[in-house]
Amino acid sequence: MPLASSVRAALAASLVLAAAGALAQNAPLQPRELPARRIPVPSTVSPELQQLIGQPLRTGWNTPPTTPEGWKQLAESLRAAAAPNVQAMRERLKVRVEPGTLGGVKIYTVTPETIRPENRERTLVQVHGGCYVLNPAEAALPEAMLIAAIGGYRVIAVDYRMPPEAYFPAALDDSMAVYRAVIAKTDPRRVGLIGTSAGGALVLEMGLRAKQLDVPLPGAIASGTPMSDSTKTGDTFHTNEMLDNVLVSPEGFCDAAAAFYANGHDLKDPLISPVYGDMGGFPPTILTSGTRDLLLSNTVRVHRKLRNLGIESFLQVYEGQSHAHYGRDDRIPEVREAFGEIAYFFNKHLGK
Amino acid sequence: MPLASSVRAALAASLVLAAAGALAQNAPLQPRELPARRIPVPSTVSPELQQLIGQPLRTGWNTPPTTPEGWKQLAESLRAAAAPNVQAMRERLKVRVEPGTLGGVKIYTVTPETIRPENRERTLVQVHGGCYVLNPAEAALPEAMLIAAIGGYRVIAVDYRMPPEAYFPAALDDSMAVYRAVIAKTDPRRVGLIGTSAGGALVLEMGLRAKQLDVPLPGAIASGTPMSDSTKTGDTFHTNEMLDNVLVSPEGFCDAAAAFYANGHDLKDPLISPVYGDMGGFPPTILTSGTRDLLLSNTVRVHRKLRNLGIESFLQVYEGQSHAHYGRDDRIPEVREAFGEIAYFFNKHLGK
Repeated sequence: MPLASSVRAALAASLVLAAAGALAQNAPLQPRELPARRIPVPSTVSPELQQLIGQPLRTGWNTPPTTPEGWKQLAESLRAAAAPNVQAMRERLKVRVEPGTLGGVKIYTVTPETIRPENRERTLVQVHGGCYVLNPAEAALPEAMLIAAIGGYRVIAVDYRMPPEAYFPAALDDSMAVYRAVIAKTDPRRVGLIGTSAGGALVLEMGLRAKQLDVPLPGAIASGTPMSDSTKTGDTFHTNEMLDNVLVSPEGFCDAAAAFYANGHDLKDPLISPVYGDMGGFPPTILTSGTRDLLLSNTVRVHRKLRNLGIESFLQVYEGQSHAHYGRDDRIPEVREAFGEIAYFFNKHLGK
Repeated sequence: MPLASSVRAALAASLVLAAAGALAQNAPLQPRELPARRIPVPSTVSPELQQLIGQPLRTGWNTPPTTPEGWKQLAESLRAAAAPNVQAMRERLKVRVEPGTLGGVKIYTVTPETIRPENRERTLVQVHGGCYVLNPAEAALPEAMLIAAIGGYRVIAVDYRMPPEAYFPAALDDSMAVYRAVIAKTDPRRVGLIGTSAGGALVLEMGLRAKQLDVPLPGAIASGTPMSDSTKTGDTFHTNEMLDNVLVSPEGFCDAAAAFYANGHDLKDPLISPVYGDMGGFPPTILTSGTRDLLLSNTVRVHRKLRNLGIESFLQVYEGQSHAHYGRDDRIPEVREAFGEIAYFFNKHLGK
């Protein structure tokens, strides 16, 4: 190596490796220019997960509906298309699913073959995802079935009202109504909240709302890849764009749906973007994401926020996974692993 | 939205959002084709960290030395260039640094202005990074100074032999010699190991080696963005390529250095790539990485491995950070935050 080149490299590397470089002040912030790349499916995950990771970008990711009727039609089409898969999952997981109402809200009670003895006095409230607009009725159930079966828990799944029937804050109001009905009969320390994506945001919003209303907080919260910032802010909205094959882009499907739900309300309201809320006093929380998740930043930002408040908060990030891959199908080993972690978390932190 | 398009979207989305899609079997695994992109510096980190994130790719990242003499020359240039910054950091952090030898190995003893009362009987052993080849002498010290000052710990920093003076397993042998000398005088449950990058791998390798030698394990391990897989395997080697401005690419500087250290030895040996080792029985471990870290996958793979063994393991992932940004400079708020987390972890898990 020529000396001049060595010295040049040394000067650069001294900033990079010696962990003691002076900070440039007021330097202009240059974006990173990334060349086009081909990203292989990783060899470091199960064959079943490789199949998910290898799927192309979600069809129609950049052509969301533009009318209330279009959203409703899409939600219904999805529900119908999902129904057989939900049914098959229910059979594989051997859970019982009973529709009902609680606190005036439509729910499903999901019961595993065996409720674990330590969970007899405990209840989980599950709040489904789907960008606040999708997954009505049984399409809401996979996460509830997974945690019921893998954790041995009784689960109340909230089938909250959605646009165009009801806009913000209907989803939150309905979830709170169910939660309040549950804690009327069960010590809140024995009640856990669980949700993914919009549901991951809603369980955080429920904590914020409970504080506002002086309602007791639950004993533990599981928030998966939360839509914690609906203002499209966060580094992985950019770095994982076109890599995450579920959400694909902040200019895609899900942020359009969140805006449809907000119905003109400020997207930075902590009850829509909970990363901006005051989470002081929150119970122990587990957060789950993946390295390709468009919402990895929205997940780690909540984790840092909770940790900086001194709250017990546990982060799980799964290799190669896009948004909410961790809850996709019970036959994927990493899905059973993720719900095993969540079950372990609830078991450790909920009141006995 | 036309019905045909709606149904097509529905069928795709049913796989995507309802979490219950059937798994395609034996489908060919398609890579993801990413277009060229411009990634802005995130607004979601401190101004000080923004300066680091906005730095261009490390100069000379793809032209590592090709001869032993070139590596030695580079290491010496880096050491000399880093020295003033290390000195300034030492003064800001008000730590005392004393060179010495322990177990026949060169060390520095790093002492904070005040050792916290609960840490009087505790010692940390710090094993520096630098791709197994760089950061001799005082260039090794920033991490040791950060945890000494922020955690109130006495720290022994290992200045292990490096190529071309000594190849694999010299770095590990020297680190073990120091560790054995420390635990000869201090209950191993009161001894913590801390390292980043190659040092993050070495502290894991020390756990594996201690098991082989029937030496007692330490009380806790802090492994930052470990080079846990020197075979260039892991999803973020690809997804964060050209985004991480420190390591830049698996075809860059650091993997060339690791191969130089291995000196022909199998790179998949768990004592070089500890993710392949049996970590059963490991003590509590904290792992630290960033969303842009080329080694994010190597970090989360170790986290999952430890968790699946039932070991208490805590993952911290920082917004927007490239490889080892979290230990760069004590004036960056997120650096103090990260070392605050590590100090909290050691305080909670080391024997009193």
